[in-house]
Amino acid sequence: MDAAARAEEFRRRLDQAAEATEAALDSLLAPAPLADEITRPARLLEAMRYVSLGGGKRLRPFLVIESARLFGVEGASALRTACALEMIHCYSLAHDDLPAMDDDDLRRGRPTAHKAFDEATAILAGDGLLTYAFDVVADPATHPDASLRVSLVLALARAAGLGGMVGGQALDLAAETAATPLSQAETMQMQAMKTGALLRFAVDAGGILGGAAPAQKKALRRYGEALGAAFQIADDILDAEGDTAALGKRAGKDAERGKATLVSLLGLDAARTRCDQLVNEATTALAELGLGDATEILAEAARFVAARRN
Amino acid sequence: MDAAARAEEFRRRLDQAAEATEAALDSLLAPAPLADEITRPARLLEAMRYVSLGGGKRLRPFLVIESARLFGVEGASALRTACALEMIHCYSLAHDDLPAMDDDDLRRGRPTAHKAFDEATAILAGDGLLTYAFDVVADPATHPDASLRVSLVLALARAAGLGGMVGGQALDLAAETAATPLSQAETMQMQAMKTGALLRFAVDAGGILGGAAPAQKKALRRYGEALGAAFQIADDILDAEGDTAALGKRAGKDAERGKATLVSLLGLDAARTRCDQLVNEATTALAELGLGDATEILAEAARFVAARRN
Repeated sequence: MDAAARAEEFRRRLDQAAEATEAALDSLLAPAPLADEITRPARLLEAMRYVSLGGGKRLRPFLVIESARLFGVEGASALRTACALEMIHCYSLAHDDLPAMDDDDLRRGRPTAHKAFDEATAILAGDGLLTYAFDVVADPATHPDASLRVSLVLALARAAGLGGMVGGQALDLAAETAATPLSQAETMQMQAMKTGALLRFAVDAGGILGGAAPAQKKALRRYGEALGAAFQIADDILDAEGDTAALGKRAGKDAERGKATLVSLLGLDAARTRCDQLVNEATTALAELGLGDATEILAEAARFVAARRN
Repeated sequence: MDAAARAEEFRRRLDQAAEATEAALDSLLAPAPLADEITRPARLLEAMRYVSLGGGKRLRPFLVIESARLFGVEGASALRTACALEMIHCYSLAHDDLPAMDDDDLRRGRPTAHKAFDEATAILAGDGLLTYAFDVVADPATHPDASLRVSLVLALARAAGLGGMVGGQALDLAAETAATPLSQAETMQMQAMKTGALLRFAVDAGGILGGAAPAQKKALRRYGEALGAAFQIADDILDAEGDTAALGKRAGKDAERGKATLVSLLGLDAARTRCDQLVNEATTALAELGLGDATEILAEAARFVAARRN
């Protein structure tokens, strides 16, 4: 495949994953109660749907689905894991947007959850999505093998928790009010936790679902880490250069807050160079999987992440 | 055992469970990073410790530990499950106390988390504890059997989620601004979700850990439901009668907000009678377990819950 065909195939698969994720989330968050539930409160459910449906590139679900596909795993196992991960990503956006955190009114071109509903509902919708993610992964419908499901739960909890996403958000908030900005190493660590951990989990999940060999799991991990770092630098570049309309969220926030990013630390050109290096690291890791052309779609994902305009 | 000896033995075991839980939570929330974590941000960890350490009767951990003990399960399996449940209980208090929710300044006689820290940190500490609870349960240190661990994860997620605790809190908040107060049936359902679901899980967890027979699991469930309902009525009675100093949190909140409780719906005397009935239901369910005197401590727990003064 030439570059254009590869890019087109990537877009097709990304759209496909987004559609499948949207439909599966819609079904998981349907008003009908589950067997073990007493009821699903209507307004809370509506807010959970608002937060998780109808938006986003669904990059994390795509990564789960495509990394699982590398090992021949398709269908409900990958899709339900993808949905659980997306629920956690979406809950984190709803909480990060709260007045007490980033205080944002706009997300994906729509009012944020606390604007569309109210603060209490936005907090509870986030709590509900976070909790439901573990319900979905632990459910036998995700995979017949209980030990595999519990491995996913553990990996997801670690990626999302105090040593991962939540911890990264705490470090990011602390940096805003700190006397000195974060160093480059601290910024990279904060970003590896805040954004990187969930992206890394997406790829790890494929390896867990597919029963990848230990060496393959290591290579997947390296791919996930490089992809996550590239994603974050691209995000910083977008925030520095982007306009609010294209982003669907407010641009220029980082500079406004005097926040250290790799762009502010290295400058735009060096940040772009670093991003390219990370794409190379990502594709090199994929080559080590020993799965040949099957990894092309994930290599394209790394290039896409680094070059994206929104 | 006579009534006084039973009550004394119950207090001893409750204190013992509280001490063990405190020590285990302290260790789980130690600053030293776990193997898979990049780091544990100091201020976030401090807030998670503030929210979960140094307070509370630890009734839920006690119920996990004692219901597991019925089936010969002791040690780390029960204690780690107890800690996970307590983390979820404590996170829910921190989020419920937020200005956007119940807006409370006092909890267990101390400033609430958003007062002691700040709102963003209180939200993140709650998110962190909720996430960590699933990490703790899913970890092989909790039990060697992965299918048992994943059963615990699933039961915990359902008890804590939109069909359980989070859903109940959403219904409770909605009722405050609704045109008409909740009916008795609606109030009971809201309470069964908001407070009952976690108490029920505590007892269910003992059955899961102990490999209880299906009929025993059903009897445990009936015990847990009756105990949970008795707990909530006792809570409503305390709020109606209690004083802030003894409660360690503000009393009289329900009436102030015109909130429907079983006390406001039935009156104090009928609420007390209903509470006594529930204690009977709880002890009858225990008798059906076919475990003889071993259940006396849980029967005493039901009596304690109904008669407690704080």
